[in-house]
Amino acid sequence: MIDHPSPDNLPSAARVNGDRLWSRLMDMAEIGATQAGGSNRQALSDDDQAGRELFLEWATSAGCHATTDKVGNLFVTRPGRSNDDPPVVLGSHLDTQPTGGRFDGVYGVLGALEVVESLNDRNIETPVPLQIAVWTNEEGSRFPVSMMGSAVWAGSLDLAEVLCLRDTEGISVGTELDRLGWVGEAPFGHPMAAYIELHIEQGPILEASSDPIGVVTGVQGLRWYTISFAGSPAHAGPTPMDVRQDPARALASALQSIYGVAADHGPWARATPAQFRSFPVSPNTVPAEISFSLDLRHPDSQTLDSMDRAVTAVVSEAARTHQCGSAITVDNYSAPVDFDAGLVSMIEAAANGCGFPNQRIVSGAGHDACYVATKAPTAMIFVPCENGLSHNEAESISALDAQRGADVLLGTALKVFDELA
Amino acid sequence: MIDHPSPDNLPSAARVNGDRLWSRLMDMAEIGATQAGGSNRQALSDDDQAGRELFLEWATSAGCHATTDKVGNLFVTRPGRSNDDPPVVLGSHLDTQPTGGRFDGVYGVLGALEVVESLNDRNIETPVPLQIAVWTNEEGSRFPVSMMGSAVWAGSLDLAEVLCLRDTEGISVGTELDRLGWVGEAPFGHPMAAYIELHIEQGPILEASSDPIGVVTGVQGLRWYTISFAGSPAHAGPTPMDVRQDPARALASALQSIYGVAADHGPWARATPAQFRSFPVSPNTVPAEISFSLDLRHPDSQTLDSMDRAVTAVVSEAARTHQCGSAITVDNYSAPVDFDAGLVSMIEAAANGCGFPNQRIVSGAGHDACYVATKAPTAMIFVPCENGLSHNEAESISALDAQRGADVLLGTALKVFDELA
Repeated sequence: MIDHPSPDNLPSAARVNGDRLWSRLMDMAEIGATQAGGSNRQALSDDDQAGRELFLEWATSAGCHATTDKVGNLFVTRPGRSNDDPPVVLGSHLDTQPTGGRFDGVYGVLGALEVVESLNDRNIETPVPLQIAVWTNEEGSRFPVSMMGSAVWAGSLDLAEVLCLRDTEGISVGTELDRLGWVGEAPFGHPMAAYIELHIEQGPILEASSDPIGVVTGVQGLRWYTISFAGSPAHAGPTPMDVRQDPARALASALQSIYGVAADHGPWARATPAQFRSFPVSPNTVPAEISFSLDLRHPDSQTLDSMDRAVTAVVSEAARTHQCGSAITVDNYSAPVDFDAGLVSMIEAAANGCGFPNQRIVSGAGHDACYVATKAPTAMIFVPCENGLSHNEAESISALDAQRGADVLLGTALKVFDELA
Repeated sequence: MIDHPSPDNLPSAARVNGDRLWSRLMDMAEIGATQAGGSNRQALSDDDQAGRELFLEWATSAGCHATTDKVGNLFVTRPGRSNDDPPVVLGSHLDTQPTGGRFDGVYGVLGALEVVESLNDRNIETPVPLQIAVWTNEEGSRFPVSMMGSAVWAGSLDLAEVLCLRDTEGISVGTELDRLGWVGEAPFGHPMAAYIELHIEQGPILEASSDPIGVVTGVQGLRWYTISFAGSPAHAGPTPMDVRQDPARALASALQSIYGVAADHGPWARATPAQFRSFPVSPNTVPAEISFSLDLRHPDSQTLDSMDRAVTAVVSEAARTHQCGSAITVDNYSAPVDFDAGLVSMIEAAANGCGFPNQRIVSGAGHDACYVATKAPTAMIFVPCENGLSHNEAESISALDAQRGADVLLGTALKVFDELA
């Protein structure tokens, strides 16, 4: 039975090789490395491609075979005893923000690879395949839809529409997928026995409570908007202040009110204005238009709806007060997600089995797991990150926490295989 | 004496050909015409070149000869009796804002050409030459220094520095001057008997009082700044609002305070925030930096200094309140200007001679005349523009007011020639 140990023969709390994991995290960070110590591997760029090639080199050496689907999602499979049954899937993404860190996404992919390596180290054959999913364009910064690959895979976004998304230089997703050779034949929405995503918390909660493991029960809902104010362009010198239709006045007033909306909706409400732009680009003309993006989040869907109504009202009010026009469009909506209760309990049991203090936590960030959860039993594992920082070149986790998270991922996978055996 | 009538033989209030002037204004507006009825002939562009070529065609047919200097300022001369004496110079600029109107600058150049044509129509030889100046890059929108050509001509800006200014695509002034063949041998700061610039008011004062002529006594001082707030990039979801260093909070607070500074400094104070930008361009990251330009103006230099101190203080205060960094740089300073009292009186007398109601007025906008005033007796003539609108594709003046302004320009030039005869 050496090729297929029964679950009883498995170590009760098998551990990964933390040094190998850390060394690979650091190697991956060299690709698209930024001066301030972060990574810039934006989706479908040459550096994103180079990151995948390095990962595939490791995965192939570890005995896995790879396929892609039509949106470039990469699936790497370690065969099991029965390869006709749905795999247990672990994964995340390798693309980063323009000024991203070394761990967001990457840690979940390389943690999954470390589970494969640990099974290989122990010569363990699993009852069904173990698969690693690398989702395309999770970040949504270059092409403006986040969790793009997993959303298309889950049928929540239309492939044809996604292929036409363009970056600021006018290059489309479809063009880049073809250029990089990422288009394959793997089907969308293929069955999965379970999906488990390991990730850094990207917030300060675990660090503050000194718990090395977060057992993620669900994900905050989010809404993305583009908000713009239209004024009347006029010469900066001769035009008296009181006759202007100045969209910067509406902007100032709306921003103040938006922060007020967040404060009114309690400690879990989030409001992030970004991507400020104005037109024309001239220093001595009252702008014709100012626009910005707004990211609103809350774990409760009714509260998020209430925030939506409040923001819509304050934007109109700011425009009216300052005799400007306004427009507000919703670019993205992701409802709050509850993860699979059974899988959440298994993660908790695995963490306890390893002796790691842990707590249940709601994710403030959207993850590919949100879309996968519509198709398969899904949950996530979090580890703390320094000062709660993420989407930041200074993003950092300890090597010990990296190892602990991967230990819990391995332990959870073994429990799932145990149930499937 | 038919070639040189004595001043006594001149018509006491000679008039220009308003139809010819209007027709040329409309022809020029076809070059770089925008969909909304304005013009886009940004400095040193192909359209700016095409505008100059059309003007030169007319000026050459009117018997003028042309030269340029090393910053591309174009001087077109109608010879006088004595061509060794300093010319009487009329002029303005042909470049526009990206969404500019049909009259800002163009009117002063084509009004000057109409003076040349009117002298030709009457076969009048002037005692000294009449020259038309077309200054390079008055607008400062493509290359970020306004009144660039006249400032270099007057010795207020260094030629070598100006040649290195780049547009947002990285193309330099020097490269464009060479490409367009605008570099000539005319000396900087050549003597002028007088400089008179005809311009639209770009404000609402003349229209409100129904005066067709503004006798401009001087120009408001201006300061241009780039202001930026630095925050700490963080993920928009997990990061609690109260631990963020969010530069958009500092922005909102600073904008409110800046409008307060303008209000505190009376009805002539102007504050125009524009050119908003943020980095990174990602909807789900608290921005690392937000920047904008600020244009401050006042006709009194001590009041402008007080506004400068107040803005510097509120920017620091906004940053400190929201735990952000801040930076404020001065990109441009132009002191308030007082025009030549004798020339101002001659303009007033010319307007009265034509029977046109007029008032003395301070310009809210900077003009090439500000720099020329440091070298020669200088003044300006304003005509009303509809709703005070300028730097706007809807900028408009009436054909009658266009003719009246050029009549006053002709009348003033004749008075100056009279004194020089």
